[in-house]
Amino acid sequence: MSPLRPRVVIVGGGFAGLWATRALASSAVDLVLVDRCNHHLFQPLLYQVATAGLSAPDIAAPLRHILRKQGNVEVRMATVIGIDAKAKCIDLDDGTTLDFDYLLLATGATHAYFGIDHWADHAPGLKTLDDALGLRRKLLLAFEHAEAATGPAEREAWLSFAVVGGGPTGVELAGTLAEIARHTLKNEFRNIDPSLARVRLIEAGPRVLAAFPEALSENAKQQLEKLGVEVTTGKPVQGIDADGYQLGDTFVPAKTVVWAAGVAASPLGALLGAPLDRAGRVQVEPDLSVPGHAHIFVAGDLASLKQANGKPVPGVAPAAKQMGRLVARNIRARLAGKATTAFTYKDYGNLATIGRMAAVVDLGRLKFSGLLAWWFWLVMHVFFLIGFRNRLVVLLNWWWAYWSYQRAARIILGNDHDLPPTA
Amino acid sequence: MSPLRPRVVIVGGGFAGLWATRALASSAVDLVLVDRCNHHLFQPLLYQVATAGLSAPDIAAPLRHILRKQGNVEVRMATVIGIDAKAKCIDLDDGTTLDFDYLLLATGATHAYFGIDHWADHAPGLKTLDDALGLRRKLLLAFEHAEAATGPAEREAWLSFAVVGGGPTGVELAGTLAEIARHTLKNEFRNIDPSLARVRLIEAGPRVLAAFPEALSENAKQQLEKLGVEVTTGKPVQGIDADGYQLGDTFVPAKTVVWAAGVAASPLGALLGAPLDRAGRVQVEPDLSVPGHAHIFVAGDLASLKQANGKPVPGVAPAAKQMGRLVARNIRARLAGKATTAFTYKDYGNLATIGRMAAVVDLGRLKFSGLLAWWFWLVMHVFFLIGFRNRLVVLLNWWWAYWSYQRAARIILGNDHDLPPTA
Repeated sequence: MSPLRPRVVIVGGGFAGLWATRALASSAVDLVLVDRCNHHLFQPLLYQVATAGLSAPDIAAPLRHILRKQGNVEVRMATVIGIDAKAKCIDLDDGTTLDFDYLLLATGATHAYFGIDHWADHAPGLKTLDDALGLRRKLLLAFEHAEAATGPAEREAWLSFAVVGGGPTGVELAGTLAEIARHTLKNEFRNIDPSLARVRLIEAGPRVLAAFPEALSENAKQQLEKLGVEVTTGKPVQGIDADGYQLGDTFVPAKTVVWAAGVAASPLGALLGAPLDRAGRVQVEPDLSVPGHAHIFVAGDLASLKQANGKPVPGVAPAAKQMGRLVARNIRARLAGKATTAFTYKDYGNLATIGRMAAVVDLGRLKFSGLLAWWFWLVMHVFFLIGFRNRLVVLLNWWWAYWSYQRAARIILGNDHDLPPTA
Repeated sequence: MSPLRPRVVIVGGGFAGLWATRALASSAVDLVLVDRCNHHLFQPLLYQVATAGLSAPDIAAPLRHILRKQGNVEVRMATVIGIDAKAKCIDLDDGTTLDFDYLLLATGATHAYFGIDHWADHAPGLKTLDDALGLRRKLLLAFEHAEAATGPAEREAWLSFAVVGGGPTGVELAGTLAEIARHTLKNEFRNIDPSLARVRLIEAGPRVLAAFPEALSENAKQQLEKLGVEVTTGKPVQGIDADGYQLGDTFVPAKTVVWAAGVAASPLGALLGAPLDRAGRVQVEPDLSVPGHAHIFVAGDLASLKQANGKPVPGVAPAAKQMGRLVARNIRARLAGKATTAFTYKDYGNLATIGRMAAVVDLGRLKFSGLLAWWFWLVMHVFFLIGFRNRLVVLLNWWWAYWSYQRAARIILGNDHDLPPTA
């Protein structure tokens, strides 16, 4: 690296960080991309890994491999443990300190339990591949426990599943779980009928998929119910333990509760000392820089910004990619002594899958649902999945799952005695 | 289940147990197949998961799914913690006791460290999917540590790999590791040249692949060296710690040591109270029953038996399948009041892969090596891999790996703070 070239450090190899890195490929800067994982994760398909439809490597690609031809970037697998905005350096957990001229923080979000942290023990969330593999293990083991249960109450509790949170992730998980219970596991057990499993989706707000128009939310609810999901709206979960959850005056026995409700920004925002919103996101300037620190940018789910219409920029992959690209452009502008550009979110639409042949699509004037929406969702997701090989394998797995109702990754890992429920 | 039908309990869903279960499909017995995992594992391709070529679910299939159409079998995911041969029952770790009329123990082998158990901390072995994912993590992290190293000695130690044991697993691992270092990771690092990594294979005996004729062993050694592996024979490793290993008077720095040397039988053999050989295997009667317990059989790697030529039956998949089928036949014979049959191992040949386009094949009179042997090995293994879908995905991954030198599963899992190096 030339000592004369400015150094840009990018923390986080998700959509925002990776798209910013790529957009700086032909700029005269030295880039360091830091991530605590070695891979970029295609998060929109994470629920497929959790529900045993895809393998972990199907939806992830090593950052080094993606960027191998981009000569101006060095990839570092490490966790950031300190940021000094004034001295322009960050500390990594491997003991090194990285100086920077420009910094982009794009470490995204994690799940949050509204401050009731012990719920995490009983209701795992879904943000990383490790989360997905742990959840897969938990879901598949529930049917094993039901099969081995010695009494009807125990059996029913193991066959009772609840998903807390009616956003896209909650809807995907509940819909797919119902499909697994009703179709995938058919004829495989001797003491239980998996299709008698109850899958409940609990949303505290008035409707599922609140980001969609009301008609599509209602439509999504009907599609969920057709798949066998019991949908409850307008009631928050008030307690979760190992045996079930509290909803109003009722305690519902359920050995498997999945968390898809609260989201909190990555703690790196707090390390910055910048103004945060309620969810811990950094309240950025319109050009995505941090107030008072023109050389530090925040993008993706970690950034909090309002659109011209007053609504917040949503925490979705297209917004993260657009932010990443704008940060790259603004860094180039700063280097050239020019003015930076304000971020405007270009909304191409919103789509959510619900389960087999069920989805909703909102493209502004064009709204549709059901089978056509599901095909649209599938084509879009395969198209956007990084890497030619991954797309082929994912398509093959889906084709197989579609015709056979089978799921390719129904393997319970982490059986070794001293291992936690992971892998 | 009918109370009049005899109950056959089979412990272990590997090649021996699964083939016995299937061979009893049309018999008037009630079968219970007990395994601590939910899947049958195609162990011959386990090294591909460890070296990031395949995903864990590619080489495993749920036992329930394989057996869903076989009405006389119940699958139980549990660990056996006690065997009472006289009372004819086994205890499971979920608190239940299973009575049996006939019992087949087929729980295979695990790795062993010649009694020096602390070597296990530094030199993991490869027997389960969890082992493979832990090993994958260790191998990939070594290159990350080398990239982040602050001095040349540290860097070299992280780029120094050793595989202990020159049997088929050790040879496969060493050959594939050399390929990863020389080809897969090309151009992906900025501070290190992965192709400078040293991969050493250490065999205590006089030659690698001792089960093959001498000429093929020599040939395998040459193929390994062509791939970039340094082969040492005739010297046992005398010590292993976090920084390297002791060989004669020399301590060789190596942060990554893999164990492919010792194998010990599953501890279930000892629970039986039957005569064991030095490796803990049960010394069975010619009909694979346990001496003094005509209603208990042992098959696969847990069984110790000599062939007519005085050589032991080898611990390979074809032998396990043949044993499993013979136990099924002998149980049927007992039920019909007929005499049992002695086991004879039908040896169709021996093949071992070494790496990209390198393998050795010994079919008795026909012996060959190199590219042709590699293709032969590949076709045989895809053919024997259980499940149509798995074969397609595996073929696709191999086709991709062959042309691109890339490996599909280069994902480091287990990054979550409180997780061990697994997943």
